[in-house]
Amino acid sequence: MGEFDLLARLAPFLSGAGDDLVLGSGDDAAVLRVGDREVCLTVDVLVEGVHFRRDLSSLADVGWKAVAVNCSDVAAMGASPSVAVVGLCRPPAVSEAEITELYEGLSAASRHWGLRLVGGDTVSADALALSVTVLGDVAEHGAVPRSGARPGDHLVVVGALGAAATALRQVAAGVEPDAMLLAAHRRPRALVAAGQVLARGGATAMLDVSDGLGADLGHLCEASGVGAVVRASALPVEGGVASVLGALGADWVEVVCGGGEDFALLAAVPAERAEELAAAAGAAEDVPAAVIGEIVDRPPGPAAVLALDDGTTRDLTGLGFDHFQR
Amino acid sequence: MGEFDLLARLAPFLSGAGDDLVLGSGDDAAVLRVGDREVCLTVDVLVEGVHFRRDLSSLADVGWKAVAVNCSDVAAMGASPSVAVVGLCRPPAVSEAEITELYEGLSAASRHWGLRLVGGDTVSADALALSVTVLGDVAEHGAVPRSGARPGDHLVVVGALGAAATALRQVAAGVEPDAMLLAAHRRPRALVAAGQVLARGGATAMLDVSDGLGADLGHLCEASGVGAVVRASALPVEGGVASVLGALGADWVEVVCGGGEDFALLAAVPAERAEELAAAAGAAEDVPAAVIGEIVDRPPGPAAVLALDDGTTRDLTGLGFDHFQR
Repeated sequence: MGEFDLLARLAPFLSGAGDDLVLGSGDDAAVLRVGDREVCLTVDVLVEGVHFRRDLSSLADVGWKAVAVNCSDVAAMGASPSVAVVGLCRPPAVSEAEITELYEGLSAASRHWGLRLVGGDTVSADALALSVTVLGDVAEHGAVPRSGARPGDHLVVVGALGAAATALRQVAAGVEPDAMLLAAHRRPRALVAAGQVLARGGATAMLDVSDGLGADLGHLCEASGVGAVVRASALPVEGGVASVLGALGADWVEVVCGGGEDFALLAAVPAERAEELAAAAGAAEDVPAAVIGEIVDRPPGPAAVLALDDGTTRDLTGLGFDHFQR
Repeated sequence: MGEFDLLARLAPFLSGAGDDLVLGSGDDAAVLRVGDREVCLTVDVLVEGVHFRRDLSSLADVGWKAVAVNCSDVAAMGASPSVAVVGLCRPPAVSEAEITELYEGLSAASRHWGLRLVGGDTVSADALALSVTVLGDVAEHGAVPRSGARPGDHLVVVGALGAAATALRQVAAGVEPDAMLLAAHRRPRALVAAGQVLARGGATAMLDVSDGLGADLGHLCEASGVGAVVRASALPVEGGVASVLGALGADWVEVVCGGGEDFALLAAVPAERAEELAAAAGAAEDVPAAVIGEIVDRPPGPAAVLALDDGTTRDLTGLGFDHFQR
């Protein structure tokens, strides 16, 4: 059973919108009305051996990443991170100095995105795992859900794709990973400023690309009841990825669109503003950004397809990272 | 190294109060100003083999408890739980039906305390663990910190002490645990209504008794810069505990004051209202409540002592449950 099947099974226990809950379970973050404001809340768990390996990441990297992946969820709402709490499972063999190093990473990322660590719970366990929950402030333009994309909207990606997945392919192949690519796995960025540019600019739907472009675009299409066509030639692929994957003999579409851990932002935006918004959002973070395709009526077949240069298409939605398939 | 030493080492990475952070790290929950309101945020992690055993608790019990222990932290601020997110580490051997059972427990407790589960992250791992983060609404009377107790205040305990710890002593001794006592370990209560009674009534300091009365009273004294004297004869000990511990030949003070998992509330309140507030808070939950002693100037020796009927005293602060000492 994959992660997404389990989520469907658990959905009845999770709350949809209603009363002061503006956006319930099923988005990058839940959104709650508090007085005259709105806040968003999200949690991510990182487990040793599943999400990180100690031979590839320092514990400071792991702490950084635990904050960054949550800030990326907050960014995908167009919100800004405010405070975080940390739940830490600590094996007896992990020393006080190592826990301190982990917290140095948590703290560095928190400073970077302007949030404060306000508490935590550290417990004994057999495996190292950490759960970070981040609360974010939703600005006046409101949070951007996954569900608002309309046929005719254009699709924007902010942030380069494929770096982390390509580095992990190198590791899996026994090749020394490219340091620049591995950095995307070790210390991902959260594109908070870009998210706000897109939200203010009228994005109709947004999420962060954490499971891979294909799977996450599938989520956006599913939530919005639409389809999508993406042009392969337009994808903002990280420099060096194509040549590394070529040398490995890997299918670049599979790795770039299915690899995960990009922490790029994917948004549907009004067509007439798409180029301008992509440029502004990319400039806000100094990262690549592109208009990659458009939203269409929900087709009978796969919701999202990739149009290749040779005129053929591939199903995008079947691609994607799923932790349970390890 | 004990849990409390580690917390001290990590304190520099955690944020104290300031700006819109009304109460930072180090209390039962952090308190954040959001517009004209205040919210509180807390996290607790439960790990199989450390906090629960599958032969003693069903997975529905575990889900219930994960919500309850967080609601107890929210109760200790005088606040009310609103929404929660769940981080779940799932071993491959734990079936879809078992995860569903866990969520049934999470959901039942959430309904009981009027909170909504608004999201989560379920990941693959080698050990079963869950991290629940709860956001709470702080009422107009404001959150009650640990730090406001003043000499002359009286100490109130709401909720019976010793039940869970006594049941686990029976288990450790190879004796069939008393079902009523074990229920306190399996399905703890969170005394949310009592916390609000105490907060509205002017409690100067409050926390929930999760590590044991001795350790938690030590935390209150440390945070408030005071001492405390508790009368052993006044403690609201759960019925049946004394006889069970007598049969086991166990030291009742050690178990009742050091055992943990009581999820009672301990508050310092103005002396003249102590009896009235204890009665009202107990009545709000239909649980025992008592005035157990008073706050004194910080003494040179142990901050908190237990006055026994024979005129002798014992150091209370050295007692207490510490997960890392297993």
